[in-house]
Amino acid sequence: SRSINLAVIPGDGIGQEVVAQGLKVLSAVLPQDVKLETKDFDFGARRYHATGETLTDADLDALKRHDAILLGAIGDPSVPSGVLERGFLLKLRFAFDHHVNLRPSKLLPGVATPLAGQPEIDFVVVREGTEGPYTGNGGTIRKGTEHEVATEVSVNTAFGVERVVRDAFARAQARPRKKLALIHKNNVLTFAGHLWTNVFNRVAGEFPEVTTEYMHVDAATIYLVTQPERFDVIVTDNLFGDIITDLAAAVSGGIGVAASGNINPSGEFPSMFEPVHGSAPDIAGQGKADPSATVLSVALLLRHLGYEPEAARIEDAVSADLAERVGQPARSTEEIGDALAVRVAG
Amino acid sequence: SRSINLAVIPGDGIGQEVVAQGLKVLSAVLPQDVKLETKDFDFGARRYHATGETLTDADLDALKRHDAILLGAIGDPSVPSGVLERGFLLKLRFAFDHHVNLRPSKLLPGVATPLAGQPEIDFVVVREGTEGPYTGNGGTIRKGTEHEVATEVSVNTAFGVERVVRDAFARAQARPRKKLALIHKNNVLTFAGHLWTNVFNRVAGEFPEVTTEYMHVDAATIYLVTQPERFDVIVTDNLFGDIITDLAAAVSGGIGVAASGNINPSGEFPSMFEPVHGSAPDIAGQGKADPSATVLSVALLLRHLGYEPEAARIEDAVSADLAERVGQPARSTEEIGDALAVRVAG
Ligand SMILES: CC(C)[C@H](C(=O)O)[C@@H](O)C(=O)O
Ligand SMILES: CC(C)[C@H](C(=O)O)[C@@H](O)C(=O)O
Repeated sequence: SRSINLAVIPGDGIGQEVVAQGLKVLSAVLPQDVKLETKDFDFGARRYHATGETLTDADLDALKRHDAILLGAIGDPSVPSGVLERGFLLKLRFAFDHHVNLRPSKLLPGVATPLAGQPEIDFVVVREGTEGPYTGNGGTIRKGTEHEVATEVSVNTAFGVERVVRDAFARAQARPRKKLALIHKNNVLTFAGHLWTNVFNRVAGEFPEVTTEYMHVDAATIYLVTQPERFDVIVTDNLFGDIITDLAAAVSGGIGVAASGNINPSGEFPSMFEPVHGSAPDIAGQGKADPSATVLSVALLLRHLGYEPEAARIEDAVSADLAERVGQPARSTEEIGDALAVRVAG
Repeated sequence: SRSINLAVIPGDGIGQEVVAQGLKVLSAVLPQDVKLETKDFDFGARRYHATGETLTDADLDALKRHDAILLGAIGDPSVPSGVLERGFLLKLRFAFDHHVNLRPSKLLPGVATPLAGQPEIDFVVVREGTEGPYTGNGGTIRKGTEHEVATEVSVNTAFGVERVVRDAFARAQARPRKKLALIHKNNVLTFAGHLWTNVFNRVAGEFPEVTTEYMHVDAATIYLVTQPERFDVIVTDNLFGDIITDLAAAVSGGIGVAASGNINPSGEFPSMFEPVHGSAPDIAGQGKADPSATVLSVALLLRHLGYEPEAARIEDAVSADLAERVGQPARSTEEIGDALAVRVAG
């Protein structure tokens, strides 16, 4: 009999509320024969204030013993900027080698977009997750003086670029339109740009059916608002991916429905799934948060673990739920979770 | 009597066409007593192919002897990516210490935007122009092998950050709403992020009337499409500024109307003004390019040189021209230039 051994990190702010709904829908969608075991981890601001710890070696050991991780949100204004980001979120991505950061953008029927018209948006961004300007390389001299110099080093390796580019080509190959865009800034960041462009062009030779294009990141932001329908799969660097996926979420229904996966394709470490939105402390504890992004992250999690029909059922349920919202009074986090649980079980 | 000694760089693609209209409007708007002298420079792809040169020391010497520079566009697909960008555009910005890269975004009445509704957009981005990841620092080892490592170093100095932050505060102070947003990614790029944030907070003390906020660059892309009216003045790093100003142009009427100034506030070197759009080789020589962005760049140039009434006349003329376009057949580059010249003279 099958089983899923899931690490759950509710985290800060609305994280608790949305994760509860994600788990509710997960339980409802799983067939009887699948045994779901979950273990909660108390990472985030509370633990940091109580112990000074963000993510210890023992924590990593404990997390490692799971098939996957579901995360709500980490971050609170009471913690200095960067402490939980570098000390928890990025530490985990690097420790578990989550080099494929998968962020689908699909404008579902009936969902509001800030764009005029109702463009057809259905693309996925494959963001590199373990290199670029995110490595923490760099430093500061003469801190706090008028002679301070601070550097940030973007580190890019053929190994790291090639594996994520190959992953993106494979995803493009598997989609009907078979299109892949590389987004970078190779006319200015020429060292990293040449590496990305050369590797991209070389790997393209192995995927003759995939149509490719290259686009500067600045131009890409224009196309994301004027012609979002042109994109199918995008592969990009860690920082550019961070920026364009927030924009992509904004134009395709908002971060209330944006899901993501931090994937280790080899399976050596568990992959982690999380909504793109943060902890939203301003609305925490009020039952106002939309759990859809978390529920869609559960769908990505299930697909990653091989439960394709269940993943599709969740996506269909969220799509139907969103389509029926138009003109209806707002529901609470829990009401939306309940409605989705009923739909996926049905 | 007054005089303007202008260096003109038409450049590549549509650069020639749009600059011709910019100069036409400039001549039309200037009072009789102002003597306008222009000198053309043949920089760009043609010169590079003919001589291998992009921008020599002698060129810089010759350019330096002018009050300002008007540039059309530089770049052509026949030149490898990066050669003209690093060898001309960035070389000039660095050589002439153009540390204030000014990019206003205003959605003019009647102008189409990809955003639903007709949001009130009127803000200006002050992009740092001489530091960050644009310095060319970094390198490559084991190029072309599976062990290649490429780095890009973002260099940030207290000196460089403070002068641009102070410039932005002064601009915010001079505007009715007096709001300034710092955009960075200080939760991940903690070395540069702390420098920017600390300098920003310190300089804020000198401008008690200015309301400030901090925003991560990824979140900023969301607000630029969902709440662009919230912005008044933005100050940001070179790379983030590059990215968000293209997005800002897209939502506020497109790059056909986006002007920019590469400013050396001390006046030690001439400042340069250019449309944000590139050389658009696909429509070059067809009279299809909209010269409005170049004409608006001429307005920024005039304001910089102290011709405020003339700058305002140009802006009003472009605004009126755009408002009258709705439902009219498309006009040629020259027709639009002629119409604007008539308006500013009137
Ligand atoms: C919180 C931060 C570290 C993170 C990132 O920059 O990757 C977030 O913005 C994201 O996109 O997941
Ligand atoms: C062409 C390129 C060097 C330039 C930049 O990145 O600054 C352009 O995109 C711009 O915004 O002026």
